[in-house]
Amino acid sequence: MNVNLMHGAGGEVMGELLKTLTAFKNNNAGGLGLESLDDGAVIPVNGTNIVLTTDSHVVRPIFFPGGDIGRISVCGTINDLAVMGARPIALTSAMIIEEGFEISGLARIVASMDQALEEAGAAIVTGDTKVVERGSLDGIIINTAGIGIADRPVRDSGLREGDQIIVSGTLGDHGISILAYREGFDLGDQLRSDVAPVWGMVDLALRAGEIHAMKDPTRGGFAAAINEMARKSGVSILLDEEQVPIRQSVRSAGELMGIDPLQVANEGKVVMGVPAADAEAVLAAIRSHPLGRDASIIGEVVTGSDVIMRTSIGGERFIEPPLGDPVPRVC
Amino acid sequence: MNVNLMHGAGGEVMGELLKTLTAFKNNNAGGLGLESLDDGAVIPVNGTNIVLTTDSHVVRPIFFPGGDIGRISVCGTINDLAVMGARPIALTSAMIIEEGFEISGLARIVASMDQALEEAGAAIVTGDTKVVERGSLDGIIINTAGIGIADRPVRDSGLREGDQIIVSGTLGDHGISILAYREGFDLGDQLRSDVAPVWGMVDLALRAGEIHAMKDPTRGGFAAAINEMARKSGVSILLDEEQVPIRQSVRSAGELMGIDPLQVANEGKVVMGVPAADAEAVLAAIRSHPLGRDASIIGEVVTGSDVIMRTSIGGERFIEPPLGDPVPRVC
Ligand SMILES: Nc1ncnc2c1ncn2[C@@H]1O[C@H](COP(=O)(O)OP(=O)(O)OP(=O)(O)O)[C@@H](O)[C@H]1O
Ligand SMILES: Nc1ncnc2c1ncn2[C@@H]1O[C@H](COP(=O)(O)OP(=O)(O)OP(=O)(O)O)[C@@H](O)[C@H]1O
Ligand SMILES: [Mg+2]
Ligand SMILES: [Mg+2]
Ligand SMILES: [Mg+2]
Ligand SMILES: [Mg+2]
Ligand SMILES: [Mg+2]
Ligand SMILES: [Mg+2]
Repeated sequence: MNVNLMHGAGGEVMGELLKTLTAFKNNNAGGLGLESLDDGAVIPVNGTNIVLTTDSHVVRPIFFPGGDIGRISVCGTINDLAVMGARPIALTSAMIIEEGFEISGLARIVASMDQALEEAGAAIVTGDTKVVERGSLDGIIINTAGIGIADRPVRDSGLREGDQIIVSGTLGDHGISILAYREGFDLGDQLRSDVAPVWGMVDLALRAGEIHAMKDPTRGGFAAAINEMARKSGVSILLDEEQVPIRQSVRSAGELMGIDPLQVANEGKVVMGVPAADAEAVLAAIRSHPLGRDASIIGEVVTGSDVIMRTSIGGERFIEPPLGDPVPRVC
Repeated sequence: MNVNLMHGAGGEVMGELLKTLTAFKNNNAGGLGLESLDDGAVIPVNGTNIVLTTDSHVVRPIFFPGGDIGRISVCGTINDLAVMGARPIALTSAMIIEEGFEISGLARIVASMDQALEEAGAAIVTGDTKVVERGSLDGIIINTAGIGIADRPVRDSGLREGDQIIVSGTLGDHGISILAYREGFDLGDQLRSDVAPVWGMVDLALRAGEIHAMKDPTRGGFAAAINEMARKSGVSILLDEEQVPIRQSVRSAGELMGIDPLQVANEGKVVMGVPAADAEAVLAAIRSHPLGRDASIIGEVVTGSDVIMRTSIGGERFIEPPLGDPVPRVC
């Protein structure tokens, strides 16, 4: 068997490959390890919960509306820390560069990374650089890893019956924008990536109430994230389509390209489950943050094992876990 | 200006590129940050010294005598933690895979990583997987990052006059073996990579005496590492060529290929500076470990700003900091 593109697309097919890639006997350092397949791992050190996570970034093009590979590299790791409930502290920057790449482009990427670090209150403290021969890589790949500190780690599997499902803003912006840009559609400046570090917003939410489960809906989009949360928590989720925030421009572009905005990556959004008693307070906290102005309560947790969308015309449909994100090299 | 292969070769030329790649204002999380350009960063968390480091691995071929890209990926990060004085705790595994790669090859790589983790007493706790289209990467790249805990962090810049320089074993094995294998030389099974996790050996050394400075001589080899240690410490180093351990097979292959074993990567070795009073005890501790049987005191620290080798015939020559490792894609 050989690897295909869907094996890296964040959906069900990737889950199959992960059985091979996570087959480590040495898979846990005392807290939450690889067995939990969460957004990051938790390592208790002298009573402090250190969260560790990593993401590589292969996005094409490397500069796109709303961001670039540098910004996404910092935000990807910041956001996986944030949805574990961890304040981001320190990140690594590992660049793999093709011979011939322009150094001015690298400077621009570094400046963009620094800007994202500034927004999140984190730092790049160490890194690595490899250069490979022309033709053996198309441009640049950036990996970041990061550590954060979680007073109370939040898992993606903690949903309970009665929890309200909150999304922090409009869905599908990143994936749809990248694809539309690649296809050369001119849809004005409404179609922009949402790539941003969410820690500030998540911090407000954590202070406003209890959060039972949290995840960043990256590759595979909201559909992948919500299904993983439901499956791991052993619950069903009922969603109300009218409450799901999607930009009109994203919806239109998605229809044009035949892509469901719920199945593509977001890079500045959070999905969470909050006990009903805390939901309004958490929602208000999220909305008070610039990144959370379009936040919405979009559904609730019930018994069962499905994700069901109640449509605006009164029907119901399943939101299936996607095989994978339909946009290649989206992050 | 464009990036060339020497920009990734671990020597003086790479130092130039690093000025651009490390130009972060957000470069420190409270301890030792990017400004120190050490093997890893130190982040004090509630009185515990967390060490964070990362390395990407692009070695070709991916399976080579003595190891493979999986083993080197784990050892690279373990060893940068070890030479910071840190016990390795938890690692990340981030794989970037070309479409078409065989899944059985991935399984073999994962098993090799697991074996190295076992030897080091560490775990892979989280990771990431990206797949890119056929032709946009030649096979596989693996990044690992890792955290460790240092009771007393050891820098690469702490050499003091009178310190004895110890190397933990023969130099040049990894780089010379990789190159000889690529060139198709058949030199028997003496030419093998030394790739191994050094923490167990370093732990014994740390318990046996004081270590003023320590580094793993990877890209650019011993010549790059010792020059960096001397420069950062503001000292000179006098080496005794007769004491420098180099395998005869490595020496011969190096001569055949016109490559200096002192300028190529080692992946299971340590260079350290130890106060004279502790040198014999530390040496004995290192030699008591299977990886340290060929350890040797090879020189001493004096005032000045050079690295000088006293040759066996009574002469002296400078060991210059190399422009870069002469073997491309060595790790
Ligand atoms: N090569 C790998 N080795 C070990 N664990 C892996 C590897 N690839 C992924 N994982 C683990 O599988 C889970 C899913 O990984 P994934 O990268 O999809 O998560 P994510 O970072 O939250 O999403 P995204 O990468 O789309 O931002 C995580 O728990 C991750 O640690
Ligand atoms: N892209 C980068 N961004 C930030 N820091 C970097 C980057 N590349 C290298 N560095 C820093 O530069 C210094 C030298 O890096 P280098 O990778 O040569 O160290 P090393 O890992 O000890 O050696 P090797 O990679 O050969 O094993 C380190 O302090 C590292 O943190
Ligand atoms: Mg995530
Ligand atoms: Mg992620
Ligand atoms: Mg490195
Ligand atoms: Mg090092
Ligand atoms: Mg290294
Ligand atoms: Mg990931």
